[in-house]
Amino acid sequence: MINLKLRRREIDFLLHDLLNVDAVCAHPRYAMHDRGVFDATLDVAIKVADEHFANHAAKVDAEEPHFDGERVHLIPEVKQGIDAYVAAGFMGTSFDIDDGGSQLPYAVAQGIAWVFAAANVGTAAYPFLTMAAANLIRAHGSDAQKARYLPPMIEGRWFGTMCLSEPQAGSSLGDIRTRAEATEHGWYSISGTKMWISGGEHELSENIIHLVLAKIPGGPAGSRGISLFIVPKRRINDDGSLGERNHVSLVGLNHKMGYRGTTNTLLNFGETGECRGWLIGEVNHGLACMFHMMNEARIGVGLNAAVLGHTAYLHSLDYALNRPQGRKPGERDPSSPQVMIAEHPDVRRMLLVQKAFSEGALSLCLYGAALVDRLAIAEADAERAELNLELEILTPIIKAWPAHYCLEANYWGLQILGGYGYTRDYPLERIYRDNRLNPIHEGTNGIQAGDLLGRKVMMHGGAAFKLLIARIAATIEAASTDPSLAEFSTALKAASARVTATTMALAAAGARGESDRMLANAWVYMELLGGLVIGWMWLRQMQCIAGMANPNEADLGYFEGKRQAARYYYRWELPKLERHAALLDSLDDTLLATSAAQL
Amino acid sequence: MINLKLRRREIDFLLHDLLNVDAVCAHPRYAMHDRGVFDATLDVAIKVADEHFANHAAKVDAEEPHFDGERVHLIPEVKQGIDAYVAAGFMGTSFDIDDGGSQLPYAVAQGIAWVFAAANVGTAAYPFLTMAAANLIRAHGSDAQKARYLPPMIEGRWFGTMCLSEPQAGSSLGDIRTRAEATEHGWYSISGTKMWISGGEHELSENIIHLVLAKIPGGPAGSRGISLFIVPKRRINDDGSLGERNHVSLVGLNHKMGYRGTTNTLLNFGETGECRGWLIGEVNHGLACMFHMMNEARIGVGLNAAVLGHTAYLHSLDYALNRPQGRKPGERDPSSPQVMIAEHPDVRRMLLVQKAFSEGALSLCLYGAALVDRLAIAEADAERAELNLELEILTPIIKAWPAHYCLEANYWGLQILGGYGYTRDYPLERIYRDNRLNPIHEGTNGIQAGDLLGRKVMMHGGAAFKLLIARIAATIEAASTDPSLAEFSTALKAASARVTATTMALAAAGARGESDRMLANAWVYMELLGGLVIGWMWLRQMQCIAGMANPNEADLGYFEGKRQAARYYYRWELPKLERHAALLDSLDDTLLATSAAQL
Repeated sequence: MINLKLRRREIDFLLHDLLNVDAVCAHPRYAMHDRGVFDATLDVAIKVADEHFANHAAKVDAEEPHFDGERVHLIPEVKQGIDAYVAAGFMGTSFDIDDGGSQLPYAVAQGIAWVFAAANVGTAAYPFLTMAAANLIRAHGSDAQKARYLPPMIEGRWFGTMCLSEPQAGSSLGDIRTRAEATEHGWYSISGTKMWISGGEHELSENIIHLVLAKIPGGPAGSRGISLFIVPKRRINDDGSLGERNHVSLVGLNHKMGYRGTTNTLLNFGETGECRGWLIGEVNHGLACMFHMMNEARIGVGLNAAVLGHTAYLHSLDYALNRPQGRKPGERDPSSPQVMIAEHPDVRRMLLVQKAFSEGALSLCLYGAALVDRLAIAEADAERAELNLELEILTPIIKAWPAHYCLEANYWGLQILGGYGYTRDYPLERIYRDNRLNPIHEGTNGIQAGDLLGRKVMMHGGAAFKLLIARIAATIEAASTDPSLAEFSTALKAASARVTATTMALAAAGARGESDRMLANAWVYMELLGGLVIGWMWLRQMQCIAGMANPNEADLGYFEGKRQAARYYYRWELPKLERHAALLDSLDDTLLATSAAQL
Repeated sequence: MINLKLRRREIDFLLHDLLNVDAVCAHPRYAMHDRGVFDATLDVAIKVADEHFANHAAKVDAEEPHFDGERVHLIPEVKQGIDAYVAAGFMGTSFDIDDGGSQLPYAVAQGIAWVFAAANVGTAAYPFLTMAAANLIRAHGSDAQKARYLPPMIEGRWFGTMCLSEPQAGSSLGDIRTRAEATEHGWYSISGTKMWISGGEHELSENIIHLVLAKIPGGPAGSRGISLFIVPKRRINDDGSLGERNHVSLVGLNHKMGYRGTTNTLLNFGETGECRGWLIGEVNHGLACMFHMMNEARIGVGLNAAVLGHTAYLHSLDYALNRPQGRKPGERDPSSPQVMIAEHPDVRRMLLVQKAFSEGALSLCLYGAALVDRLAIAEADAERAELNLELEILTPIIKAWPAHYCLEANYWGLQILGGYGYTRDYPLERIYRDNRLNPIHEGTNGIQAGDLLGRKVMMHGGAAFKLLIARIAATIEAASTDPSLAEFSTALKAASARVTATTMALAAAGARGESDRMLANAWVYMELLGGLVIGWMWLRQMQCIAGMANPNEADLGYFEGKRQAARYYYRWELPKLERHAALLDSLDDTLLATSAAQL
């Protein structure tokens, strides 16, 4: 690897040693694959990402896209990178072979996404968004819509976007104003303005397929009156060739702190002429369709955040191992050679926190992806119901925890480099800026926290929560027979009991009508349950290593590093949950009792 | 105010209500001043900062300084701003009238610095650095040096820098390589390379006075062989007029994440010809001279971080009070009007954390500045010794705590604005980038933590620590008679006892030879003692408000907001100290036992 900073062993450890993703190959759906296929695909991904994505990550940040009033200009390397990506067949990794995809397990596809995100999140966003849009068409489109849109999208000729937000409606999608009026021709006439649309305009592809939330006049108010439409940038003739422009016009590009390679746009629909949209799914069921897809998008966001956390970790580790500065505390001879800064305990702390957060987060995101795979092949209703429940409760954590904590990891990574980290000569500050988006988009972290506590934990009488705790208990029980894991399994058992008690207390408050107080401190609950889940992921990693019959000699150091990261997490981070639990138990009303006008 | 975001009431509250800085006017040194002078000076500062600093904060970030190989180019507004600053007499606010300054108390000067930092930290850095350099000459220069350099610096004709770091020596100054060879002419011949020199080159002033750490060959190794030199960019003729260039050459500008208005340079001394330097202070005592000044510089860094925390807080508060989005949890009617986001508890949390951190930090920085003032007029040796001790132990906290926690505050401020906060249309992301420097420069936060625990807490048998705890106890005792403060005084008393016990345990570990384990987790100790000190500052603020005989009606809302911020701090943040204490008590060896090569 020339430009790309990546630890292949980590991907392999999580996908194969920990999650055993090859197991799905026993199922007919994945029978054409085996570990060799996965490895070879990853080899190619690393090569393409290194040569065609990582090569321009700094350049596209420095020379961000610009709009001259008529066209959007991107540095040519973006198009070259995307072309290489498409040519290597990565566009449809998890799509069915019948649709032109590779039909890889979703977890393996996320392993590939890891590689490209590590190389260049800005350029990687275009195919990421396109596949999210295609996935939505696959799940909810008619056969005719699938036939029309999926092949050119998976071939990389047409790209896609998700158009949800508007300038006045971000977190509150029920308040969107974009209208879709039925016409006698079967299409709808779309009018309105959409904000924050990533990939909303560019010349990387022949067409852009916008998936647009809009309201059909006369429907119910709020989110129950939202429908979903396919709105192509250029209309499509009956033979599939491209027709005239469909009056989706670019008002302007947003100029962002990071993630600059991805155009982010304000779009007008129907301002310059008729903008045609085609209903996808049922009338007034648009938000449900969109949220179905948002769940996978949220795994993608969590993974991106975790990858940025890990990539910056590797950069700062390199620096710490090679930068001489200072001496050990006991060394009194100023003419003695300086030590590498990795020798200083505080630098090790900054390395361990990054490793603990990012590898904990990566394992959680891939665990979630593996659940998606198991769901895809599960046949028994009970198994499907359980997998769905587990995904439901984990999804907001998978989105919000990595976004928050892996940005904190980036803070420490940059700090290790000192002044150098603050310059644009090193990638740390760029990664830190890129990662700052992740707590915001695809549902802010505050929205995720409310979803977690207010909906996912409480739904079906706490069924998802109970299932999650049972899963954690099963890991603890299996680990408790191994004395080498006692430190971890004992602590996790206590933490799990503590989280359960607090959750019951919150549920009781809700049941007696104090739902405002129950919900007010939802972010703390995200820290509580998220922290427990990451502890679980670290116990699983330790258990996996302890269970290896004949570990490879070359891996022993790597495994020892894992153990130190787990120790760090269990001694430094997990004990913080007690304070979160105590605050939640108190139903503290400081937030409720504050008048913001007095602040 | 047009461009500037500032709450004048907060400055007045801290300087006058809380710290009663006017009290120093009873001393002859400040007898020419009174509250009216301070207020009027602040009025002018706000006007100049608003019109001439805040006007170009975004522009100088977008159009950063560049070097064409011969000259450094800055947007013209920087020079215009500095000229207005100099014309209004702000260059020498805390310098003696005899030296051409205004002889204002240092705390008032910091109040003025607050205003300019809120407006534009990049432009404000030039006079800040110049005054730091002038202050060093004032403290350690000969009379001839003072006469030669101070007037043109205080008049704003010559600017100054501090040249400490080198590419291979940042935190470890003992390893600098810049040489100073004595000549027969009285000056030294300087040769070497200095890195990270802010304001190291520009055309804002007629001359630049570099204060340079260098080694005289043959001296002791390490930091005991460092001397300090005055190295002007242009030589000065005997009549004070400017002579030829002194061979300080700009290698290049560093391109930074933020703070872009301030040039940051790599400088070569003596590469293109003889570079003359004049010894200041005694041979081999350069580091001591420099550190004396660094202490005030560290208060300045802490203040900058706190100001950026508060400015972003005010921006996000404005947004939260004016952005309609979503509804209250109980509102089921989607056609009801949206509420302002400040109504959502999680947004209030993000406001309160910013307010608690930034106003706690601001009060600490100004408290430190007021100690400097009291020291300047203290006559009794015992009082001076106590003030010195208190300043010694507080200085690393004043630098590191605001730098760390007010950056976290910025994270939450940006988050309130969601996608808008991530764009360059709002100042949040710029402030967040600017503030990221503060944990790094003037001694990294890791260096501060080591200084705090390893030196300041332990020195003189723990004298500084004991004094600090006694100061805190005095506040608690005074507050304990007021039932309205019971929540705070009770909690702070328990926290102070906990911190003391942990400190004793650490001291005992050091005494029995376990100093590696004692020091390994120094950053946690910074969080522990820093968190206690901020709690103390909040109790002092509450006590101040509770003690007001006839509070102004118009202030009641503001005071209630203060109380909610104090409550937030005491219920949400202060209890976290228990976990820090427990970790430190355990002398956890995770960091020591980790081999970084395995990470």
